[in-house]
Amino acid sequence: MALIVQKFGGTSVGSVERIEQVADKVKKFRDNGDEIVVVVSAMSGETNRLIDLARQINPAPEPRELDVMVSTGEQVTIALLAMALIKRGVQAVSYTGSQVRILTDSSFNKARILNIDGHRIQADLKAGKVVVVAGFQGVDEKGNITTLGRGGSDTTGVALAAALKADECQIYTDVDGVYTTDPRVVAKARRLEKVTFEEMLEMASLGSKVLQIRSVEFAGKYNVPLRVLHSFQEGPGTLITLDEEESMEQPIISGIAFNRDEAKLTIRGVPDNPGVAFSILGPISAANVEVDMIVQNVAHDKTTDFTFTVHRNDYDKALAVLKQTADGMGAREVSGDTDIAKVSIVGVGMRSHAGVASRMFEALAKESINIQMISTSEIKVSVVIEEKYLELAVRALHTAFDLDAPGGQA
Amino acid sequence: MALIVQKFGGTSVGSVERIEQVADKVKKFRDNGDEIVVVVSAMSGETNRLIDLARQINPAPEPRELDVMVSTGEQVTIALLAMALIKRGVQAVSYTGSQVRILTDSSFNKARILNIDGHRIQADLKAGKVVVVAGFQGVDEKGNITTLGRGGSDTTGVALAAALKADECQIYTDVDGVYTTDPRVVAKARRLEKVTFEEMLEMASLGSKVLQIRSVEFAGKYNVPLRVLHSFQEGPGTLITLDEEESMEQPIISGIAFNRDEAKLTIRGVPDNPGVAFSILGPISAANVEVDMIVQNVAHDKTTDFTFTVHRNDYDKALAVLKQTADGMGAREVSGDTDIAKVSIVGVGMRSHAGVASRMFEALAKESINIQMISTSEIKVSVVIEEKYLELAVRALHTAFDLDAPGGQA
Repeated sequence: MALIVQKFGGTSVGSVERIEQVADKVKKFRDNGDEIVVVVSAMSGETNRLIDLARQINPAPEPRELDVMVSTGEQVTIALLAMALIKRGVQAVSYTGSQVRILTDSSFNKARILNIDGHRIQADLKAGKVVVVAGFQGVDEKGNITTLGRGGSDTTGVALAAALKADECQIYTDVDGVYTTDPRVVAKARRLEKVTFEEMLEMASLGSKVLQIRSVEFAGKYNVPLRVLHSFQEGPGTLITLDEEESMEQPIISGIAFNRDEAKLTIRGVPDNPGVAFSILGPISAANVEVDMIVQNVAHDKTTDFTFTVHRNDYDKALAVLKQTADGMGAREVSGDTDIAKVSIVGVGMRSHAGVASRMFEALAKESINIQMISTSEIKVSVVIEEKYLELAVRALHTAFDLDAPGGQA
Repeated sequence: MALIVQKFGGTSVGSVERIEQVADKVKKFRDNGDEIVVVVSAMSGETNRLIDLARQINPAPEPRELDVMVSTGEQVTIALLAMALIKRGVQAVSYTGSQVRILTDSSFNKARILNIDGHRIQADLKAGKVVVVAGFQGVDEKGNITTLGRGGSDTTGVALAAALKADECQIYTDVDGVYTTDPRVVAKARRLEKVTFEEMLEMASLGSKVLQIRSVEFAGKYNVPLRVLHSFQEGPGTLITLDEEESMEQPIISGIAFNRDEAKLTIRGVPDNPGVAFSILGPISAANVEVDMIVQNVAHDKTTDFTFTVHRNDYDKALAVLKQTADGMGAREVSGDTDIAKVSIVGVGMRSHAGVASRMFEALAKESINIQMISTSEIKVSVVIEEKYLELAVRALHTAFDLDAPGGQA
């Protein structure tokens, strides 16, 4: 008998039929003797419907009141799922974030969980009930309703699992696990049995959208075993845990992530003085543009070149800001490129293996793919290449690092 | 400066445009220096949409979970109205029933208010805020969300006014006040400046749908001055209060109510024994049919006739039950009639005036309208007549009791 927290997102509860299917799945676990806490999101489309309604009153609605409104989305789902369970003879009870209570700070629309009181849920579980909790929401110290910001339901699941010391937190999604890379790009991509929190974090930050990054951080911090599963298919999914035992078979690289959403900006011939990076990036961040990769080349002739990437939607804004900065500091030239892609190899195995980066560069060189930028972390190497070579690069790397599924197709 | 509780129903907040209009009205009072608490219902249609959704899961949804769901309707409205007020520069804050807290018993779907904590609202009012409260909902001692049953928002308004010792509870509706009778039937009907709680109760129970009967009871019990007003027209409305000073001009009759929704059932030749009324009506109420008027004629030949009315929708069910009862007790005959109507004259003035009933009967006799049943209370006389004479009877009584507006048309 295990205590399991199961989280179902908006698509998994997007209709009455799907809620009935979720109830079937929960019942199966319950019949198996497990203690189950279910966390659900709003039915897909509902949160946007509510936000649209609020925006008809005010394009920038009062944050506290927006949370009062948006939180009703999950409140409807918890009631429907509890009804569906009760119809199946499964004892069940629903709670809003406020009822649990999931205490958060008072940052409306993007609150952070401070504490979860598990007593009420523990008592219900002991009494044989399935507990259905509204994801994405909580309550501050003054009793105001808060929401965790979009995608916060994953975080609710993980935080509940941590508070209840659950054996596992299962995140049900529209994919059957975490893959070595996107199967739409590489047919030979394989589902991973296991991946570490660190790897998952890098993959999420690099554009793999399976899990919300905050929930992975949370799971890692409290060491909550996280499992990604398909909502409506059977299968073991992918387990995300601490890298406790270094298995013999552990691959050097766990997966290949990529991202087409970035654009590159370069400013050339800037004086190589202390503070130059801040002079360039300060105005960019003041314009509310987030910067991802940053590369500064070694100086020559007392000037240096400086390159960084931003989200493609922010490209025009960033370019205008950068041109103004360049005029102010007498830089030689500003240029940019939106036809780029970032490809990253991720794996805790690379910590103990030398030459991982060069193996990556070799594989790309063999395909004559030019590398424009390089950035590394302890368990990741990222490169920026011309966008049109993206698929070619990902497939070459997938093969070079022995990730191809035996039975897959090239 | 007065403390006013204003209640707006589902139609008054049925769209974003109407919510904006309500915000304009609230702002006008606030600018006038009044302290305002606003109680709102769910946007019209929303409660039914939620109930339909629940019924897709289970035609008889779990009552606790139904309340979790249905209560989201008002939660959306309070947030939208608060946003609309804030947009107008009016400080405002919204509260759910649970947040206030409006403590109820645990009768889900039809809970009764036990207590209201006014401290939070008082503090907000003192800070200059308009407080927007979700009608129709509360929370039980264990923190479960409850709803007061349909139409309960009026009751929330009155209960809040009582708890806050408000100067007035204003109920905004789609009519501009309480009329001497339905203006669609009698063109000379007049809006009443004032009416007593007792009269209003009788009128409501007799089919005048302006106010929910429970809210009038509540207002009478706690002596909360209640005012019925039009949501989107200017005007003083009708004030409902205690009958404190007997004014010289007080009319004997305040209004004429009528009801076409009843049907009549008669059982003839039943033994005139003790307990006969229970033998007849016991099975009817066991079948969940509510009985309104009851008349038992004086016995002759050791048998008696017994007549009562039920809602027309329950007529077939009641007739079947009654036939079975008649067989069991050897009654002579069972008959029924759905083409009837009930007409009632209501007024606290009749307490001190003799001959009110005979004046009524005289007016009907002059029009050759036959009276089938008669029932009286301290401030009301009701008769059942053939339905086709209803309009004629109401107009005749309206004139006979000097209720016609001077400028009105016959």
